[in-house]
Amino acid sequence: MTYVIGLDYGTNSVRCLIVDTANGNESGTAIYEYETGEAGIILDPADHNLARQNPADYVRGAQVSITKAIAEAQKNDKDFNPDKIIGIGVDATGSTPMPVDKTGTPLSMFDEFKGNPNAYVWLWKDHTSHAEAAEITALAQKDHPEYLAKCGGIYSSEWFFSKILHCLRTDPKVFDNAYSWVECVDYITGFLTDTLRPDIVKRSRCAAGHKAMFNNRWGGLPAKEFLAILNPRLAQLRERLYSESYTVDVPAGMLSDQWAHKLGIPVGIPVAVGAFDCHLGAIGAGVGPGKLVKIIGTSTCDVMVAPVTRDLPDIPGLCGIVDGSVLPGWYGLEAGQSAVGDIFNWFVNYIRPGGKDAGSHQGLTEKAAQLKPGQSGLLALDWNNGNRTILVDQRLTGLLLGQTLHTRPEEIYRALIEATAFGALTIINRLEEYGVKIDEVINCGGIAEKNPLVMQIYADITGREMKVSRSSQTCALGSAMAAAVVAGKASGGHDNFDQAQKAMSGLRDMTYKPDPGNNSVYQDLYKLYRQLHDAFGLESFSGQMSNIMKELLAIKDRANI
Amino acid sequence: MTYVIGLDYGTNSVRCLIVDTANGNESGTAIYEYETGEAGIILDPADHNLARQNPADYVRGAQVSITKAIAEAQKNDKDFNPDKIIGIGVDATGSTPMPVDKTGTPLSMFDEFKGNPNAYVWLWKDHTSHAEAAEITALAQKDHPEYLAKCGGIYSSEWFFSKILHCLRTDPKVFDNAYSWVECVDYITGFLTDTLRPDIVKRSRCAAGHKAMFNNRWGGLPAKEFLAILNPRLAQLRERLYSESYTVDVPAGMLSDQWAHKLGIPVGIPVAVGAFDCHLGAIGAGVGPGKLVKIIGTSTCDVMVAPVTRDLPDIPGLCGIVDGSVLPGWYGLEAGQSAVGDIFNWFVNYIRPGGKDAGSHQGLTEKAAQLKPGQSGLLALDWNNGNRTILVDQRLTGLLLGQTLHTRPEEIYRALIEATAFGALTIINRLEEYGVKIDEVINCGGIAEKNPLVMQIYADITGREMKVSRSSQTCALGSAMAAAVVAGKASGGHDNFDQAQKAMSGLRDMTYKPDPGNNSVYQDLYKLYRQLHDAFGLESFSGQMSNIMKELLAIKDRANI
Repeated sequence: MTYVIGLDYGTNSVRCLIVDTANGNESGTAIYEYETGEAGIILDPADHNLARQNPADYVRGAQVSITKAIAEAQKNDKDFNPDKIIGIGVDATGSTPMPVDKTGTPLSMFDEFKGNPNAYVWLWKDHTSHAEAAEITALAQKDHPEYLAKCGGIYSSEWFFSKILHCLRTDPKVFDNAYSWVECVDYITGFLTDTLRPDIVKRSRCAAGHKAMFNNRWGGLPAKEFLAILNPRLAQLRERLYSESYTVDVPAGMLSDQWAHKLGIPVGIPVAVGAFDCHLGAIGAGVGPGKLVKIIGTSTCDVMVAPVTRDLPDIPGLCGIVDGSVLPGWYGLEAGQSAVGDIFNWFVNYIRPGGKDAGSHQGLTEKAAQLKPGQSGLLALDWNNGNRTILVDQRLTGLLLGQTLHTRPEEIYRALIEATAFGALTIINRLEEYGVKIDEVINCGGIAEKNPLVMQIYADITGREMKVSRSSQTCALGSAMAAAVVAGKASGGHDNFDQAQKAMSGLRDMTYKPDPGNNSVYQDLYKLYRQLHDAFGLESFSGQMSNIMKELLAIKDRANI
Repeated sequence: MTYVIGLDYGTNSVRCLIVDTANGNESGTAIYEYETGEAGIILDPADHNLARQNPADYVRGAQVSITKAIAEAQKNDKDFNPDKIIGIGVDATGSTPMPVDKTGTPLSMFDEFKGNPNAYVWLWKDHTSHAEAAEITALAQKDHPEYLAKCGGIYSSEWFFSKILHCLRTDPKVFDNAYSWVECVDYITGFLTDTLRPDIVKRSRCAAGHKAMFNNRWGGLPAKEFLAILNPRLAQLRERLYSESYTVDVPAGMLSDQWAHKLGIPVGIPVAVGAFDCHLGAIGAGVGPGKLVKIIGTSTCDVMVAPVTRDLPDIPGLCGIVDGSVLPGWYGLEAGQSAVGDIFNWFVNYIRPGGKDAGSHQGLTEKAAQLKPGQSGLLALDWNNGNRTILVDQRLTGLLLGQTLHTRPEEIYRALIEATAFGALTIINRLEEYGVKIDEVINCGGIAEKNPLVMQIYADITGREMKVSRSSQTCALGSAMAAAVVAGKASGGHDNFDQAQKAMSGLRDMTYKPDPGNNSVYQDLYKLYRQLHDAFGLESFSGQMSNIMKELLAIKDRANI
């Protein structure tokens, strides 16, 4: 009997899961909430685009969460014993890079940079770099369209080089003191295996390929000449970044003696190379050919795989098509919505509708469930945090239309749910338009498990059955599966992900089937959603409304100076 | 020393004002809240378009409010004595018609029709007749464009013939039992002067010209042949309606002995022909050449006068250009916004933002006042109740755009205020585009008096000084001035409205001046507002978004079957 540890570094906390390699049973779990900032995020009240993290929270989070999970497993599972742990896997958010020195130590850990947010971790949802993203996009479109072809045609402000270039421009002291930049996930596998040095830390293929335009076809990262046009110092940095990247079936290294001792688990067990949360989450949910995995949280990540052939076209708006970013040996396809749960949370926590008997998610959901499709006359766009797939544009904003003098909070709440479902349908349509057939949709994440109304609306709007992953912790489970694979069958793990998925993952019995009558109404509504989507989101659209949200943001930026 | 009574029949209550004819001092005032329905309105939970009233509330309202106002004047003003009252004036909402029998008694007062909302008063904001409005518009556009030319080019669902035709179609029993239909305001002057019979009651020029396509140029009401195409029975009804209409300087009759006795005031004093609340309100606020009066309440009414010449063009979207509807001898020009205060009330009372420390108007206003123009990034359309001027389209709905995950209630509240101000600017621009120069803007109504933020935003957005009427009760004051004019100088009143205005009305010292910096930002925002306005509101606009709100309403109508 053997066990693996899966570590899932989320936006606000890290979760540790201890999993039985034979059947996926979850023997122990623990969460550590990051202590820095607001719910783990360093914010700037004057700049809503800024979102940073403290890497010390990651270190402390590993220790506290693993220790607690072990204690829980010992309590819950009489077969469990820390000596039976054979590997560790890690997932994290991204692109979440940080500046480090030559030893791989984050600059934020030096007194000199204490309190300077630019020296900390640039969290995925930091959007300070939208100007740089536009600049990189424009240059690549002109000189190297192939760089963008596999990441949706637009380089995002959420990504690696946008953030580094923005730092170079706005805080040259931090940039100059950074020997290199590492993704959060590589920093974590680095400190666990004592391979933090930027020249030896094993970089995640997932992060490299999806966010840093890394591709072996053109020799890894974008060419020096390309980076030099953006800024000569960025070209100099290239040499101190990396030229190789690794899939999650490769060990990042062996657990260091120091960490093994601290945690009371075997020395020298393998730690798998990391990947982004949703990519390992997709593995934990059972991703495979024809299976779309939707990880629905504050935002969504939509993950598929496709055979590595030369026939697969570029798919505009996808966050990436990267060889080996999900399952080794397959193209990993990533799409996503910039906000889903975050939109519902915004309505409940910021607007706080309903006065004294104020709307909780539960209260609003109960009332919204009484409504029929179309009955409110409302239609919304799900762009409160921009649009990731298919428009890849952070400078888009929300829209609500159809309000009367009788519109009630639950009607708006339902319209917001529907808007995210229309966004989900737009992603499904885009994949299929480009030949990636979807036979099965597997949902995971808290909303998929806990809100049947959301899942039923998704079924009704997409006209597809919505299945739900068995595990509540697919990301951590996927990390644990990577641990089992790097450990290998000989050590009590598995030799590949196919075997690991068969043994360790599964679906719930309960699924959500589309109601044909509801689907019919939603087909009419989707036409209108798509009309708004194209009019406000596409510059080429004849309606020419695409200026409006951007001009409003420009006016807002000027007003906030 | 003489006094006049002004009666102002609003949407939820009637107000009585007792005014000194020499200086406009308000000696006594009283309000009677209508008792029927919800705040005086009979509603249908299954049809948000329906809004009816009980005419018995008008009768009781006259007695109670006048009696109380007299008592208050006796307490407040030692010079006052009921014997010194020399006339009564009346204003009311409209078009607010009701079916009556041959004696002028409303059908709703007969047991046979008790509880049937169609036999009651069809309140101005009843929108059940939108299909009939479209039909009348289409027919007039084809056969008699002159009928529409002076009422904005579109016949509204709020107006006289739309409502009667809808009754004919949906409740023929009520239609057949109606000998005639009278406007609320004519019913009131009728019962006070015992001239209720439909063939003798003096019909208001204001109501006739603005809402019933009445014009002496084509012999009064629309031609029999025209009405016959809509329905032959409507043509038959025409003979039982009216062929003359009267301005507010004409007595509707003399106060009946019965009412004089009941109220304890002189027998035989004149009661002026009535007009709509905002038209007499404009007189009370000091309307005259070059002076736009904005009466800002749940909706707005924007009133001007222009010389009676053949040069004045038709102005698309105005509710009407009617000879004598405001000041006798001048064209009365009416424009308006379908909802202003109602939109703010919707947000506070239906959405109830802010959770337990829930947003009151005051709380939201205080926070919204801290924001700079453009700072929220939000932009709204003020169409929650459709658009009156300049689009004349009830089948339009609200729109809010620019939301992020950080948008707060006070930002939305301010955006809603700004939206109504942009709507106000659109009306001002439309008037000036057609040669009606505006030198002065006088505001009245509760919002104008009590909410400096709204007035400042109106000044900043329109780039014009916002003045405020001295009286808080300009409608009732205007009615009182009509009473003074029909009484005449010989009886202690005034011989014309120019004299009456000079003596009885005025402005407050406080005015709101536009801030040039704010105005500059708002000019940018207005361009975007206008872009949305035209895209969603005009069928001819190249963006072709004008289908969206209407299709949503059609889907909503089907869902609610």
